[in-house]
Amino acid sequence: MTELLVRGGRVRGASEPVDVGVDTGGRIAEVTPHDANREAKHVVDATGCLVLPGMVEAHCHLDKTLFGRSWVPHSAGDALADRIRNVRNRRGELGLPNRQSMEALVNAMSGFGTTTLRTHTDVDPEVGLTGVHAVQELAADVADRVTIQQVAFPQHGLLDLPGTAELLASAMESGASVVGGLDPATEGDPVRYLDVIFGIADRFGAMVDLHLHTHGSAGVDELDQVIERTSALGMAGRVVVSHVYAFGDVDESAARHLADRMAEAGVGVITAAPYDFPVPPLRLLDDAGVVIGCGHDGIRDLWGPYGTGDLLDRARHIAYRSRFRRDEDILLVLDAATLGGDRLLGGEGSAVVPGAVADLVLVPVEADAEAVIAAPLGRTVVKAGRVVAGSLTDG
Amino acid sequence: MTELLVRGGRVRGASEPVDVGVDTGGRIAEVTPHDANREAKHVVDATGCLVLPGMVEAHCHLDKTLFGRSWVPHSAGDALADRIRNVRNRRGELGLPNRQSMEALVNAMSGFGTTTLRTHTDVDPEVGLTGVHAVQELAADVADRVTIQQVAFPQHGLLDLPGTAELLASAMESGASVVGGLDPATEGDPVRYLDVIFGIADRFGAMVDLHLHTHGSAGVDELDQVIERTSALGMAGRVVVSHVYAFGDVDESAARHLADRMAEAGVGVITAAPYDFPVPPLRLLDDAGVVIGCGHDGIRDLWGPYGTGDLLDRARHIAYRSRFRRDEDILLVLDAATLGGDRLLGGEGSAVVPGAVADLVLVPVEADAEAVIAAPLGRTVVKAGRVVAGSLTDG
Repeated sequence: MTELLVRGGRVRGASEPVDVGVDTGGRIAEVTPHDANREAKHVVDATGCLVLPGMVEAHCHLDKTLFGRSWVPHSAGDALADRIRNVRNRRGELGLPNRQSMEALVNAMSGFGTTTLRTHTDVDPEVGLTGVHAVQELAADVADRVTIQQVAFPQHGLLDLPGTAELLASAMESGASVVGGLDPATEGDPVRYLDVIFGIADRFGAMVDLHLHTHGSAGVDELDQVIERTSALGMAGRVVVSHVYAFGDVDESAARHLADRMAEAGVGVITAAPYDFPVPPLRLLDDAGVVIGCGHDGIRDLWGPYGTGDLLDRARHIAYRSRFRRDEDILLVLDAATLGGDRLLGGEGSAVVPGAVADLVLVPVEADAEAVIAAPLGRTVVKAGRVVAGSLTDG
Repeated sequence: MTELLVRGGRVRGASEPVDVGVDTGGRIAEVTPHDANREAKHVVDATGCLVLPGMVEAHCHLDKTLFGRSWVPHSAGDALADRIRNVRNRRGELGLPNRQSMEALVNAMSGFGTTTLRTHTDVDPEVGLTGVHAVQELAADVADRVTIQQVAFPQHGLLDLPGTAELLASAMESGASVVGGLDPATEGDPVRYLDVIFGIADRFGAMVDLHLHTHGSAGVDELDQVIERTSALGMAGRVVVSHVYAFGDVDESAARHLADRMAEAGVGVITAAPYDFPVPPLRLLDDAGVVIGCGHDGIRDLWGPYGTGDLLDRARHIAYRSRFRRDEDILLVLDAATLGGDRLLGGEGSAVVPGAVADLVLVPVEADAEAVIAAPLGRTVVKAGRVVAGSLTDG
């Protein structure tokens, strides 16, 4: 007998309701035309809902969050260096990483429909692997509702901070599976920076996620080097660049050229559309075949007080910043927030089809694009075939 | 006896709870330290809430909204001309302006805490004053919960569309109190454009609200002409420019010069931070003494599918786009969404103090800036001393 039946919802692009049957292994066994008489051990009523693959928060920083705590006024100056100094000065005083805040945020994300996330954990000689261990422990404890993938992130330096490379390697042994990094030229020697990052990734079979903030042609040069390195090492599908503000400074033909090269090398893009920074040209990247994911970046932390953990809300923001109005464009972002993010994190990126892992979110909307635009609450969330938010109808 | 008592909330900048007493005329009679024994005819429990002046939605387009209807996929191309054509082609087919949608949107706004709004109504030879009359009728019917101020807006042309100037004048006679307009040079003759707009405003003692979209130095030139015209006619405090994308193309010293001139002339700014367009430099404008208001621009209409009607949510978006992180900057936007907007619409712009009209919104937050960042629901809204959303505790 079917373990869980998600009954009478719609899947992307379809108008007729379907029943999604999930087997005891937590995978989708069948997707069939809706039949009110179908039975199962557990049933969720999805009438009036769009049934989406679980959402994938592809870029956040759990280790820094103050989520769920009393208001902490932001105390840094306006420059990037001010914020970095502020974090180093205050993280100890505020007891970061804070297990309670991290778990509160993950629970909120889960309630909104996120079933998998990638989080960047600071690693430096001062904090060592404290954050990595804290996140790893959290990941084990919440594995029933959210899959957490951890990036060891040398936020405060790599080449200039002796011991950091060794810590990144140790982080891989402690459960992190992605090597993070900043703009390769940030410490003056982009080739050596990429040597270290990609060297560790290669050694541990890990993925790479580089946060590219540099604007203008210098930023394009750095992106170029990441593309080349990925190609040279045959790491297609295992390297992503986050942010990539340099796209804001190139014309359409240059952007198209970069996008084609990224697609060919298998370099993905993750965007959060933070603040007023340029958003990569998502339509152009998608048309070129670049895989796209979405995330929040920081949520309620020492970098800034914004963020809710609702990835549908963030998808709407990304679509809005992209000036997307038509359904097909809005749905590009919805796909990025689900399938695209999943692929970038090494998952199967499967739609709601037989054989896919039954990570699902049911959103009460009439039209597909409305899920992004209205982002209504009242969602039901299924992780590996088990209802983790919302409620079972019976069974 | 006090007609309504808002008991135990906090006002902006204060840490101790207060009681806000409202008289039978709908004005605040007193704001006193909280006393649990104080009595009144009606009481609202504001414990744990920030008590703000009612919010002022300073820029929306009620006549175009499809709010509350089934999803209408956006059907226009990417260019501005495509959207203008789309509106003219489809507004008839979709039965716009639609009374039910307009009222649903106003009710939503009211529930979120908006007590006053300014709406731009299309006026052109094709629709005549249909929209103006529909909005005027709506305004009368919802006056108990929201004050609606109407702009007669020549969206589709003024100099090139014979009869439009006469229609704008008739609109003023039919209840509109603001003359709207686009970039003065949009039809080739900025001087004549401003002659017509300001001429009508002068004739009817009306205000002026110009939507400035032009980028670069051409946009700065147009802003310059509006500032000069306002000074020349002594219309300080009665002219606002909305959007003003040209600020995105000037350096800080040029922006400061413009801001000083705007402050001196009494020209206000209204921003919605739409899509990816540049946001005026709000901190710089505020420091210069320019009065700032906030709005949504279009909500769920033929121009685009976005918008909820929640002005706190929009304030957060505007603060985010402005890269505001510190409380004092975030609160600049909160003040714009309340006091600033009220002043720009011709109100008193009073805080929660004795003598002010008792338009209030209670937001359940611990810290002032949190009202913008968290924008939680569960608000109670008071319009002219009467509770219009949320609930009375007793009485």
